[in-house]
Amino acid sequence: MSLRTRQGQAPGPDEGPGWLPAALALADQLDATNPLAHLRERFVLPEGLVYLDGNSLGPLPAHVPAVVADLLTRQWGHDLIASWDSNDWWTAPLRVGARVSALIGAQPEEVLATDSVSVNLHKLIPAAVALRPGRGSIVVEPGSFPTDLYVADAVAAARGLRVLRVGPDRLAEQIDDDVALVVYNQVDYRTGRAYDVAELTRVAHRAGALMLWDLSHSAGVLPVDFDTHEIDFAVGCGYKYLNGGPGAPGFVVAAERHLEDLPVPLAGWHGHARPFAMQDGFVPAPGIGRLRVGSPPIISLLTLQAALDVYDDLDVAELRRASLSLTGLFLDLAVELLVPRGLQVLTPAEPQRRGSQVSLAHPQASAVVRALTARSVVGDFREPDIVRLGFAPLYVTHADVVRAVQALIAVVDGAEHEDPRFARPRTEG
Amino acid sequence: MSLRTRQGQAPGPDEGPGWLPAALALADQLDATNPLAHLRERFVLPEGLVYLDGNSLGPLPAHVPAVVADLLTRQWGHDLIASWDSNDWWTAPLRVGARVSALIGAQPEEVLATDSVSVNLHKLIPAAVALRPGRGSIVVEPGSFPTDLYVADAVAAARGLRVLRVGPDRLAEQIDDDVALVVYNQVDYRTGRAYDVAELTRVAHRAGALMLWDLSHSAGVLPVDFDTHEIDFAVGCGYKYLNGGPGAPGFVVAAERHLEDLPVPLAGWHGHARPFAMQDGFVPAPGIGRLRVGSPPIISLLTLQAALDVYDDLDVAELRRASLSLTGLFLDLAVELLVPRGLQVLTPAEPQRRGSQVSLAHPQASAVVRALTARSVVGDFREPDIVRLGFAPLYVTHADVVRAVQALIAVVDGAEHEDPRFARPRTEG
Repeated sequence: MSLRTRQGQAPGPDEGPGWLPAALALADQLDATNPLAHLRERFVLPEGLVYLDGNSLGPLPAHVPAVVADLLTRQWGHDLIASWDSNDWWTAPLRVGARVSALIGAQPEEVLATDSVSVNLHKLIPAAVALRPGRGSIVVEPGSFPTDLYVADAVAAARGLRVLRVGPDRLAEQIDDDVALVVYNQVDYRTGRAYDVAELTRVAHRAGALMLWDLSHSAGVLPVDFDTHEIDFAVGCGYKYLNGGPGAPGFVVAAERHLEDLPVPLAGWHGHARPFAMQDGFVPAPGIGRLRVGSPPIISLLTLQAALDVYDDLDVAELRRASLSLTGLFLDLAVELLVPRGLQVLTPAEPQRRGSQVSLAHPQASAVVRALTARSVVGDFREPDIVRLGFAPLYVTHADVVRAVQALIAVVDGAEHEDPRFARPRTEG
Repeated sequence: MSLRTRQGQAPGPDEGPGWLPAALALADQLDATNPLAHLRERFVLPEGLVYLDGNSLGPLPAHVPAVVADLLTRQWGHDLIASWDSNDWWTAPLRVGARVSALIGAQPEEVLATDSVSVNLHKLIPAAVALRPGRGSIVVEPGSFPTDLYVADAVAAARGLRVLRVGPDRLAEQIDDDVALVVYNQVDYRTGRAYDVAELTRVAHRAGALMLWDLSHSAGVLPVDFDTHEIDFAVGCGYKYLNGGPGAPGFVVAAERHLEDLPVPLAGWHGHARPFAMQDGFVPAPGIGRLRVGSPPIISLLTLQAALDVYDDLDVAELRRASLSLTGLFLDLAVELLVPRGLQVLTPAEPQRRGSQVSLAHPQASAVVRALTARSVVGDFREPDIVRLGFAPLYVTHADVVRAVQALIAVVDGAEHEDPRFARPRTEG
């Protein structure tokens, strides 16, 4: 719906400066009635910054430094080695996994927090393929977040399998009974498009394939309903919407029905049934614990655990409503104000088809992002021409949305992105 | 050498209470002339604690909490996503690896700090085997730290290879031209025995095999001379003698001559030549960076980086001398005072054959360790009957050695280990 319709009044003739007061008034009204608005104060956000990159690195929850200080000085510094038991370090991957399970509709026993998303894919893809002996293909989406492609290719090369690049829109038509596993992302990291998890999982299952969802760009902001949709496997990220800190461990999910016989491609002593028996011969731990490998990075893992406190008592459906309100407002303003200025909207307008980010295409997207940053609006750039703006409902306000649009207009109208200081750095891309 | 010989005087008739003053005097003299003694104050160690478990978890370096607080509040909290560049998060695995290289005689470009030791073995073992096509066996040591066995078995099972359990003492006799790779630990985690890295590497090479050393129980306290001995590969631990904090990332080492063609079994986007090009198709980064997989746990990794500051300007040869002085004193006292009390010494007496820990066998080793802990002497228990005491030269004093012996005598003489409160807990073993 356009700003005009929302406000019931005509904007200025050129949709120029005249739009701002009305938009800000609307934003204030939406923020005032947002039941999650109080959560913003649980985060440290620099004064004046509009942070729209929580889809890449969530901000620091304000209570985390004290938790980490206690971990360092009391648990490590004073209690030392005893902390593996007395401070429950040993069970942390299971405990943090259980905390994540509530956000994705899985059982606590189905989720483990450990290792990176990429390493976790190196566990699940070979394991899943082994559960469908005789099938020789893995389906991935073309343009997937690249690590999913690299892992599928590596696993396939080592085992003589084929990797088929088939987009979600064509899965039903192209899947056949040679496909062992489908690996899709719930939200496309470039466009912000969300796929129909329930339907695509059914399509995979009808063909006898298993389904693995990468939830890196959705866990914490979109409902997943892992169990309801009978999803087989999932991975996800700890440092984006879960705010677990830079490089926080990811999580790995396997449906209970697969756990008893789940192969363990990356066997390691933490995944052994009796790790301190120090036995020769790997015997997998019962349950999801078998996907542990070596010692987890406890400081990073317990930082993630602390960050998850923000999610206590939150309903993902409510987060989703708040997220859609933010992206909806941005899309409305973008259609009216940014598209006429040469920015193209890549994210679907239909609420059920979008994640919690909005992506815009611009021929000089990298420079646009840098110019925005200079205006204290932080998004990010993705190849080849994408400006990504993430609207994390825990701390982004509708006023932030309006400020972001205002800054984009200023950048483009002022040709600020053509300033040489915003040229692409050597390290990017 | 016995305490008697060292002191040039006769101890008490029963080597009983009479030994203590002489031992303490000797310890004080050795501590007073130890050129590394000043390093102890760089660590937080609880008052009155004798911490002999740095071979399992190094203590907290005193300066680390301030570094981590800055990382959390300034780098993450304030600088946010920009920190990947502005605070050099992106290059951290390479930078920390370069810091470790100085401790193991490798070039900075040969070492990467990332992931756990187990995950790193899942990279190197398949890569090494692929460099010796046509060879069908991997040699591991029986009784190795178990994760090395689990990884070798998993890799072999996935690729149709054999794993041969051949101890270092029998390698020369049993190795043949079917062996692609030998995987040994420089120091046996149970007995504290150190193996001859130079000679065993030569034996492997003469047979045309590659050599991978697990340095988990030696890096930071024993010279390794990775390049001098033309070692091919190594892994090691960040949380033991390197004091990087609980579950700190490990490190992975590959000789420069292998890097150009090194296969990447665990491909992931951080190991791509152009990670932000987000290309389909894995192209390995030049050099050791190709062994990166996903996002590293930055908080744990930079904690390790800070901890390594303690090693600045230290010579590993000097650390080795200090370590041998500590273990030597302990062994002298053990032979005179503990062996007669039923504790058996498992660690070789010859300096060149021992690491930086001393292991004692006792039928109730678990209870002995718990009773020692109650006396503020912290070692650890390993199956089946081993009391492990680590003598990390950065912070353990000769006075600690004497106090540990005194506590062991008190435990055994007082049958404290038979107290039910020191019985084995359910979770152990």
